[in-house]
Amino acid sequence: MFENTTKRTELGDLGEFGLIELIQKSIKLRNPETLKGIGDDAAVIDSNGLNTVVTCDMLVEGVHFDLMFHPLRHLGYKAVVVNLSDVYAMNATPKQILVSIAISNRFSLEAVEELYSGMELACEQYKVDLVGGDTTTSTSGLILSITAIGIAEKDEIVYRNGAKEHDLICVSGDLGGAYMGLQILEREKKIFLENPKIQPDLSGNDYILERQLKPEARKEIPAKLKELGVKPTSMIDISDGLSSEVLHLCRQSGVGCAIYEDKIPIDPQTYDRAREFGLDPTVCALSGGEDYELLFTIRQEDYEKLRMHMDISIIGHITDAGSGSNLVDKSGNQIALTAQGWDALLKKN
Amino acid sequence: MFENTTKRTELGDLGEFGLIELIQKSIKLRNPETLKGIGDDAAVIDSNGLNTVVTCDMLVEGVHFDLMFHPLRHLGYKAVVVNLSDVYAMNATPKQILVSIAISNRFSLEAVEELYSGMELACEQYKVDLVGGDTTTSTSGLILSITAIGIAEKDEIVYRNGAKEHDLICVSGDLGGAYMGLQILEREKKIFLENPKIQPDLSGNDYILERQLKPEARKEIPAKLKELGVKPTSMIDISDGLSSEVLHLCRQSGVGCAIYEDKIPIDPQTYDRAREFGLDPTVCALSGGEDYELLFTIRQEDYEKLRMHMDISIIGHITDAGSGSNLVDKSGNQIALTAQGWDALLKKN
Repeated sequence: MFENTTKRTELGDLGEFGLIELIQKSIKLRNPETLKGIGDDAAVIDSNGLNTVVTCDMLVEGVHFDLMFHPLRHLGYKAVVVNLSDVYAMNATPKQILVSIAISNRFSLEAVEELYSGMELACEQYKVDLVGGDTTTSTSGLILSITAIGIAEKDEIVYRNGAKEHDLICVSGDLGGAYMGLQILEREKKIFLENPKIQPDLSGNDYILERQLKPEARKEIPAKLKELGVKPTSMIDISDGLSSEVLHLCRQSGVGCAIYEDKIPIDPQTYDRAREFGLDPTVCALSGGEDYELLFTIRQEDYEKLRMHMDISIIGHITDAGSGSNLVDKSGNQIALTAQGWDALLKKN
Repeated sequence: MFENTTKRTELGDLGEFGLIELIQKSIKLRNPETLKGIGDDAAVIDSNGLNTVVTCDMLVEGVHFDLMFHPLRHLGYKAVVVNLSDVYAMNATPKQILVSIAISNRFSLEAVEELYSGMELACEQYKVDLVGGDTTTSTSGLILSITAIGIAEKDEIVYRNGAKEHDLICVSGDLGGAYMGLQILEREKKIFLENPKIQPDLSGNDYILERQLKPEARKEIPAKLKELGVKPTSMIDISDGLSSEVLHLCRQSGVGCAIYEDKIPIDPQTYDRAREFGLDPTVCALSGGEDYELLFTIRQEDYEKLRMHMDISIIGHITDAGSGSNLVDKSGNQIALTAQGWDALLKKN
């Protein structure tokens, strides 16, 4: 009925990050209370001297999850955790969430209760309050949109843009597990669809399945850093894969980096399954995503304080921008890092 | 692959408000900063002495809008305004929004730019900042999820639950227009689909079309009330129709009401079109929804201060709970009000 613009540029040609950058450029900030807009793990707002951080994520059935193997209770838990992870990545403490869902009548009330019981469990685990949201009808699948709100002292917030040359690059936990968990689930789904009588064989994969189905946000890491008297110079959570997140930190800080392949923490189960699937475990860690570990940089003088912390790996250091962002492989060769991270728009077109 | 619960209760049997109530009951609040959770126009959080309000809404293509007649720029504008309206309904000032969108590759970059240009226009108009969000792929249509954040002094917040017996019930602007605008658009769409050569005839309907396609939030009303020294005892915005919103105020305040049919403000254009469509203009005002006017109650002693305000109508008064919530029609008959408001789940099943 109404005219549309005649020019047509495909979203896939631009990619998710290209689109975000374009949106960011078209937006003006007007309020002095807005300390940080688009471009970090969360926005930052001055609330009477304290800092409020706000972040949101949308999860779409068929894009971010598959109800064939994501039980609703786990899905609810994960949807909350993913958002809290962004709050911790700002070095803030999550306090409230809002949850909007669009559901088709394919779902029963019992299914919705399962979903919310998972969200409530996450709220209990992380001491946050579910304070609002919206419920509406969907014409097809299930869509979840969660907003998380956190709080921090004014000088506690850690942005993506504070990394300096010679800083050490650290990562919590281990990487690539969630991705390998997904490979297992997708394999078993395929077998099940071909022959519904065969029950899924998930044994021996507990760790990586939990990494995929019921991940945790690393709330103890910022707490530990505070206890040790270490304030990261930059921080981000790993949702799209190590490679993509390192590049975010470097680009926003205007620096380069060297990441050492043999320092990247990979769990033996992740390693073994990757090999079985004919995948390079390092590539799984670099590009797999959904690990929700924290990637951060610290000043060299803080090295001693962290050295003995078992759950933090120092995987490289920050260089000048001119040196680029590189992976140093096991043979000592430098390879430029590329963002192979999850790119929703590119993938699906 | 995984077992599901065997019992199945249809969501449609419960309705949207029933579902919200059920969710609300299953949720615990843990943080003392959380002053108000689910159940008002927005959640309220104590931010170092100031009050932060947060609200979110999800808009789904095919449920809340039809791209046949909602131009993307207007849709972006409306999506923001609808959320800001909830912030004003708390007697707070909106400051920031976060926008998440899920889009299929049916949409071009230019379409996304149109959408965001409408949102940016609303941000400019209402002096708010778009500070974050998420962009993702949708398997079917367009889904928008917006979170709005506002601020108010501690004692300024107005809840739904403060109405007292003998309070006067007020409404801003006029009602039913957005609904009649939608009727016009749906009629013209039908004609267009039957014969695409016939261009839509929208002349003479400017006001009601604007009410539907590009509504405004009534930011000047809380400002005016403040100026007049009137603090409403309760307030809500009209998104689901006067009837539904009055019932919310009464239920949450534990009171009844008498609304006078001849006091309900209806614009002549709304009135004439309703008659042409064979609809009762009062029913359109009571059940149409999407007017985004403010419905509020004031103490009787504030009557003189508001009496001469042209854009506020006093439509009734609060009674005791035992008297029920009633409409007094033009002949003086009392009719119990029922929520005929938009009920997403009930309608679509």
